[in-house]
Amino acid sequence: MGKTFLLAPDSFKESMTAKEVCEAMEIGIRRAMKDAKCIHVPMADGGEGTVQSLVDATNGTIIAKEVTGPLGTPVLAQYGILGDGKTGVIEMASASGIHYVTKETKNPLVTTTYGTGELIRECIKQGITEIILGIGGSATNDGGTGMAAALGYQFLDENGKELPLGGGYLDRLARIDSSHVIPELKDIRILVASDVTNPLCGEHGASAVFGPQKGATPEMVEILDHNLRHYSTVVKEQLGKDVLNVPGAGAAGGLGAGLLAFTNSTMKKGIEIVIEYTNLKEQMKQADYCFTGEGGIDFQTKFGKAPYGVAQAAKSVSKDIKVIALAGNIGQDVEVLYDEGFDAIFGIVPGAATIDTLLEQGRENVIRTSESIARLLK
Amino acid sequence: MGKTFLLAPDSFKESMTAKEVCEAMEIGIRRAMKDAKCIHVPMADGGEGTVQSLVDATNGTIIAKEVTGPLGTPVLAQYGILGDGKTGVIEMASASGIHYVTKETKNPLVTTTYGTGELIRECIKQGITEIILGIGGSATNDGGTGMAAALGYQFLDENGKELPLGGGYLDRLARIDSSHVIPELKDIRILVASDVTNPLCGEHGASAVFGPQKGATPEMVEILDHNLRHYSTVVKEQLGKDVLNVPGAGAAGGLGAGLLAFTNSTMKKGIEIVIEYTNLKEQMKQADYCFTGEGGIDFQTKFGKAPYGVAQAAKSVSKDIKVIALAGNIGQDVEVLYDEGFDAIFGIVPGAATIDTLLEQGRENVIRTSESIARLLK
Repeated sequence: MGKTFLLAPDSFKESMTAKEVCEAMEIGIRRAMKDAKCIHVPMADGGEGTVQSLVDATNGTIIAKEVTGPLGTPVLAQYGILGDGKTGVIEMASASGIHYVTKETKNPLVTTTYGTGELIRECIKQGITEIILGIGGSATNDGGTGMAAALGYQFLDENGKELPLGGGYLDRLARIDSSHVIPELKDIRILVASDVTNPLCGEHGASAVFGPQKGATPEMVEILDHNLRHYSTVVKEQLGKDVLNVPGAGAAGGLGAGLLAFTNSTMKKGIEIVIEYTNLKEQMKQADYCFTGEGGIDFQTKFGKAPYGVAQAAKSVSKDIKVIALAGNIGQDVEVLYDEGFDAIFGIVPGAATIDTLLEQGRENVIRTSESIARLLK
Repeated sequence: MGKTFLLAPDSFKESMTAKEVCEAMEIGIRRAMKDAKCIHVPMADGGEGTVQSLVDATNGTIIAKEVTGPLGTPVLAQYGILGDGKTGVIEMASASGIHYVTKETKNPLVTTTYGTGELIRECIKQGITEIILGIGGSATNDGGTGMAAALGYQFLDENGKELPLGGGYLDRLARIDSSHVIPELKDIRILVASDVTNPLCGEHGASAVFGPQKGATPEMVEILDHNLRHYSTVVKEQLGKDVLNVPGAGAAGGLGAGLLAFTNSTMKKGIEIVIEYTNLKEQMKQADYCFTGEGGIDFQTKFGKAPYGVAQAAKSVSKDIKVIALAGNIGQDVEVLYDEGFDAIFGIVPGAATIDTLLEQGRENVIRTSESIARLLK
């Protein structure tokens, strides 16, 4: 009887999707063991590649949709519908990501999550009842008001006039009008994939911690932090929701807070959501060996990266499942992972090379390394 | 009971001696298996590092000795005496190597193997009865006449005058006088480590094939080839030895021919000699696993490189010994080695890096990779 290999890598960023990594692993393994059975469960951690991996893992579909980008101009975003037909998956960065702004145009006073709201609305239109929403990589600092606006919430000044989009105007927020919210929203459950536990405001808040990388000067940070605090006060007074100090409210420029205030959202670690929706543990029961991996692996992998979640899942199913990780870059203190469910960790790089060459050769390097590992397991 | 690992790598050139590789492997293995037993048998293939590895493998000593360099000026060479106290080991390149000449000074008409002969004489003085002589990396094209001259042979022109050193003067060779040869030479057995099978002369001969890399112009190649042919005729007439077409006579600028003509020499593949003198096969009998490796491994490894010899030796002792190779650079078509006794081959490189960085990090990379492999074998 052939051995069963569960293949659950994350993507190797800029080189291969997680599905492509699975395919390369299988080629290598089967060169060593012709009768090996390989189960592909492409992984993600809620960040970039989550839509692709969950769609690939469940035989779902990816749909492109033009929405409002972080600067107010249109961008072509995409979202996924899982194989069950009723779960949507969105990466907020696809609509409102930092990659849409340049050094010159980045300005967290005006960037908006409106496009993310449009993607949610689009999912609802498709009959989706549950949405997995990864919120990493944002260009925004608007407390999720743009997202809410796209779903019908109106953010009004004291004259009843709608505020412009962007966190820079929230100091003028006087009233939140919920009367035009799309009615289906209340029936939608949103699972927010976020590993960030920062509160909305203060020294550990969205503006102070993540603002600068989005282009905020010290003065802007002060304005944005003040505005988000005011915004949370209005939310508390008018919606009865206290989002100021909820862990994770500060994720994605306060989109965390906005989701908690305006939608039926639950926050969860990205990898946990992915493991749940790919049915990883159930599939793991068949496995003799588990291959995982990611473009880069180091001691930080244990803070919620996909290979860590996979290793933990494997050992929770059976201590006998050997967990073997492959990586394009083996970083600092990788040995700590041996206490976290990993049995072995291998680099795939064949020799001295530039990063560009290695990104190109990812597939052949995964094939070669997987073959060698499988030959040891014979 | 702990597993036994036989560690038999070649050196990782410019990074670690073979012994240092053994030590790094053991550190990694024992991180994974505290009770593992590691047997160190540093390897070499007759080329650079052979003295170091054989001395390390047998607890011998290395001795430095000033001799005549290829250009006639003194160089500080070294040779080894193995742990048995009666076997010497010499790399001809240490006395007469290409690294002693520059682009400006390289001239195979005048370069000499005299220093190699001096090292042989020095071994004899030390009471050595058997010499292992690696003959790669030469700067010379003198047919081994310099080596012979250092041992007392006299190469005379038709006036009975000694020829100058160097292959460029051998057209004037009229007589070889053996009357001053050191008497002990006849009792010395020389094992010549050479993987080269080229004849002395002709299109596959020493001058045509290896001359150009030693600085020979097309005109020089013609002169040298003609001179070596004349030299072989004199050797045949006066010593009764036909060295012209012996495979390997063309090695090291015809030093192969000179050794066969003037000494009690046998040619053998370098790795075979090293395996024999390190008692590798006997030690292999205890092994559950065999680790080998080299700075670079590719399909050419099967043409007599140390890891190939080790893999073959392991499988000749028992098919059950798993042979695992580590390399700083995994080259082309390495998979062909899986048909040659290798079970698995792993690169040690952690990510994108320059060759200089990798040479510096060799030790930690061998440790990390060995640990990971040993963890898989638990």
